[in-house]
Amino acid sequence: MRILITAGPTREHLDTVRFLSNSSSGRMGYAIAAEGIRRGHQVVLVSGPVDRPAPRGVLLESVTSAAEMFDACVRLFADCDAAVMAAAVCDYAPARPADRKLEKKTDGPLIVELHPTRDICAHLGAGKGHRVVVGFAMEDHDHHAHAEAKLQRKRCDAIVMNDRTSAGRDEGTIEILAARRGWRTPVSGSKDALARVIVDLVESLMSGAAG
Amino acid sequence: MRILITAGPTREHLDTVRFLSNSSSGRMGYAIAAEGIRRGHQVVLVSGPVDRPAPRGVLLESVTSAAEMFDACVRLFADCDAAVMAAAVCDYAPARPADRKLEKKTDGPLIVELHPTRDICAHLGAGKGHRVVVGFAMEDHDHHAHAEAKLQRKRCDAIVMNDRTSAGRDEGTIEILAARRGWRTPVSGSKDALARVIVDLVESLMSGAAG
Repeated sequence: MRILITAGPTREHLDTVRFLSNSSSGRMGYAIAAEGIRRGHQVVLVSGPVDRPAPRGVLLESVTSAAEMFDACVRLFADCDAAVMAAAVCDYAPARPADRKLEKKTDGPLIVELHPTRDICAHLGAGKGHRVVVGFAMEDHDHHAHAEAKLQRKRCDAIVMNDRTSAGRDEGTIEILAARRGWRTPVSGSKDALARVIVDLVESLMSGAAG
Repeated sequence: MRILITAGPTREHLDTVRFLSNSSSGRMGYAIAAEGIRRGHQVVLVSGPVDRPAPRGVLLESVTSAAEMFDACVRLFADCDAAVMAAAVCDYAPARPADRKLEKKTDGPLIVELHPTRDICAHLGAGKGHRVVVGFAMEDHDHHAHAEAKLQRKRCDAIVMNDRTSAGRDEGTIEILAARRGWRTPVSGSKDALARVIVDLVESLMSGAAG
């Protein structure tokens, strides 16, 4: 099986120095990629800027912005059987990034207009056919309602919901919502252990999709 | 000698997940801290969020935002003989950060108002007395004019100017402007080598200040 995995944050530049981002370390996505390789799958890893080496054997595509990640995913998913969207993609980006460092004004506000970025997971979900797409959700309130809405809107086969407090840490808790199967009991553990649960999920969805 | 060193980026949260930041890795500031310890100085390291261990022997104060870094520096500089401001402090922060993750709108822009953060280096410079303050500048245009203006405005004893392209990398090029001594020839090398040049500078400024 050939699996597309996204990992890490994206960065949305306001100018050459400043950017919008989030605290994703890429740990979860990289652990899923390593587990995929361990099980003999081919892994295509589309990664935002993180400070960690790619697991041996993955095909790594490094990107910076949500727009670059979108383009890489659309291109690379064409040859894949499944996609696991573990990256924390910025959903807003500055509308008019400056091509040089903005001067700091001595006082007074700076007004920045942000535009929504294109939804990678929804785009892959819409064109997936019989392939499997697993989305991720990180919420800090109304967790279940948000994840259920995402599953529908993005046409995912499952949503992995992780807690905001696990971003950048070695352990975490995930809760899985699979289409037509509902919520599973939350699982806590190291990101390596959670990666095994997620690859189990992908394999089970693939055999379901094939059957 | 007791030296305050700042390192890393700061993060200015827009909500619980999204923040403004920059690509500083903290490598330069941590290298200066390690060199300070090696020469027998006491080192107080005020660090933004970075993914590296503090050098053995430093007193580490971890902060996230520019406002937290300001408070820590003002408090800790009271007992120090010199300050080396190697952190890439965000100079703008969202005026009204949300205490929960903002919902993504399906379309339409999000307008964010940013306010200037307080200038840590200028604040320490104004109250430094006979102590030494070394500022940093990272510019991508009009380098010398910007650095010269910073030296005056922030009342620094010297400005270390580094190139934008060296952020997050192991090597770099710095150019030093010292008050009443003008520009020195640029120096390129590993950040460890550049750290030695910068600690030499601090020691020389201190002996000048004492003399």
